[in-house]
Amino acid sequence: MADRFCVTRRVEFSETDMAGIVHFAQFFRYMEAAEHAFFRSLGLSVHATVDGVTIGWPRVSASCDYKAPLRFEDEFEVRVLVKAKGDKTLTCVHVFSKLADGGPVEVARGELTLICAELNETDKTMRAIAIPETIDRLIEPAPAEAFE
Amino acid sequence: MADRFCVTRRVEFSETDMAGIVHFAQFFRYMEAAEHAFFRSLGLSVHATVDGVTIGWPRVSASCDYKAPLRFEDEFEVRVLVKAKGDKTLTCVHVFSKLADGGPVEVARGELTLICAELNETDKTMRAIAIPETIDRLIEPAPAEAFE
Amino acid sequence: MADRFCVTRRVEFSETDMAGIVHFAQFFRYMEAAEHAFFRSLGLSVHATVDGVTIGWPRVSASCDYKAPLRFEDEFEVRVLVKAKGDKTLTCVHVFSKLADGGPVEVARGELTLICAELNETDKTMRAIAIPETIDRLIEPAPAEAFE
Amino acid sequence: MADRFCVTRRVEFSETDMAGIVHFAQFFRYMEAAEHAFFRSLGLSVHATVDGVTIGWPRVSASCDYKAPLRFEDEFEVRVLVKAKGDKTLTCVHVFSKLADGGPVEVARGELTLICAELNETDKTMRAIAIPETIDRLIEPAPAEAFE
Repeated sequence: MADRFCVTRRVEFSETDMAGIVHFAQFFRYMEAAEHAFFRSLGLSVHATVDGVTIGWPRVSASCDYKAPLRFEDEFEVRVLVKAKGDKTLTCVHVFSKLADGGPVEVARGELTLICAELNETDKTMRAIAIPETIDRLIEPAPAEAFE
Repeated sequence: MADRFCVTRRVEFSETDMAGIVHFAQFFRYMEAAEHAFFRSLGLSVHATVDGVTIGWPRVSASCDYKAPLRFEDEFEVRVLVKAKGDKTLTCVHVFSKLADGGPVEVARGELTLICAELNETDKTMRAIAIPETIDRLIEPAPAEAFE
Repeated sequence: MADRFCVTRRVEFSETDMAGIVHFAQFFRYMEAAEHAFFRSLGLSVHATVDGVTIGWPRVSASCDYKAPLRFEDEFEVRVLVKAKGDKTLTCVHVFSKLADGGPVEVARGELTLICAELNETDKTMRAIAIPETIDRLIEPAPAEAFE
Repeated sequence: MADRFCVTRRVEFSETDMAGIVHFAQFFRYMEAAEHAFFRSLGLSVHATVDGVTIGWPRVSASCDYKAPLRFEDEFEVRVLVKAKGDKTLTCVHVFSKLADGGPVEVARGELTLICAELNETDKTMRAIAIPETIDRLIEPAPAEAFE
């Protein structure tokens, strides 16, 4: 069972805005990419067929608190921590830290809540379902001290 | 004094993802654009020189709850409601409603908290400042019933 | 028959980069949106079911020449001009002009070539097809002088 | 002297569109990121102060031809090949190849022409200048056979 994951990236030019910093909405794309890398590390895809059903993970809620900016070519890590797992939902915290000489410095902290959904490929609608057992058994919430 | 604003848009193709719906991070770009249109309606710009100081509004926090998807070419409105105004901060709620034949249907609700900052054009740093009086006198919080 | 179309927009903050100008890749999103508005003006959608077949328009090629930058809150127009229509393909030129007091000033000029394709909704593959007659009869190339 | 560079990436969810493939405009962001990684590999940044002057590289033109789609989680490489170097300009070809079991398969080929410019940090204008010698001596055009 896994309760966390970490990816390292570098800020690309097209992710900045005219204030010279990473655009605030871009952090949500970083979170999504980190979450998908977490899934891949478990042998899963966020858009996959499990037991004959096409599964997706639409977002129920997303939030982020910003403490300091990231700038072009900054290297940073995104630590994904599983906060809660329900029958149908999964909540992950994403801790952004800039990689500096003195060690990582937290610059933002976000949270995504996903709901497991069956995708109807014909009419493109989605229906919430229980997290399949093949996925459920791979993920568990991290202990409280991981979030400090 | 203004406490609200409303813009109408149509979903563009590049705003969708492979699930056939507007990507969840895109809602934050919609919120930002609505907020900027709100500022413009008051004769303000979110990136302007006021009393000799270059003012910007970096985000302190951003969140969104998703109820239903938006799809390509859907028309929708974003209602901006001022929720709170502090000495240095401004919090706006953004209500997304899809424009359907039976009237608008709420599909998502987000919130952005901005902090008023002086931009140092030389080193690109930002310093929180009190909202200038010329801006402060134009904006006021909306009454509680506006959020229902 | 239509051979041209024009849309007006305003640069949004999230479309700029740290150089303070609209990111060069964003012009391709503007072109696409203008092209889709052109299709809608003809009662068409770029992603539609025509005669029982799901039609899409993947791009074969895209190009843009940049003459001057666009900046935050600049108003500009995108003039779409049909350059060529083949059995299966459509090429449109997109002329970007900044709306200034002295009249529009051209800042960039791009070109998109689309191919009409049947989408297989099951395996997501695409197959080039002749432009359906219901679409073909609505669009014609613009005369040479329109491109000056 | 370097005449080429190669980066490998994986398609992220937010880079796809409702057709289930990477959005065509996204290829230009991939090209830019590859070019920047090329510059970094030479100890350069695309946004740097050289000999007391702030240098940027605005695009003069950009183009891409698309042969096959890239899809979510596909791994691909971008090979950057220097095509031409002028006094003030640099043209690079970008060859996109999907990494498949049988070896890389080319899916798209693009080209960017950059102009070396001095950025005026005060008024944000740009002025074309000769490529500084410290940059010029590091880059050379690739031989014709590299483009086959």
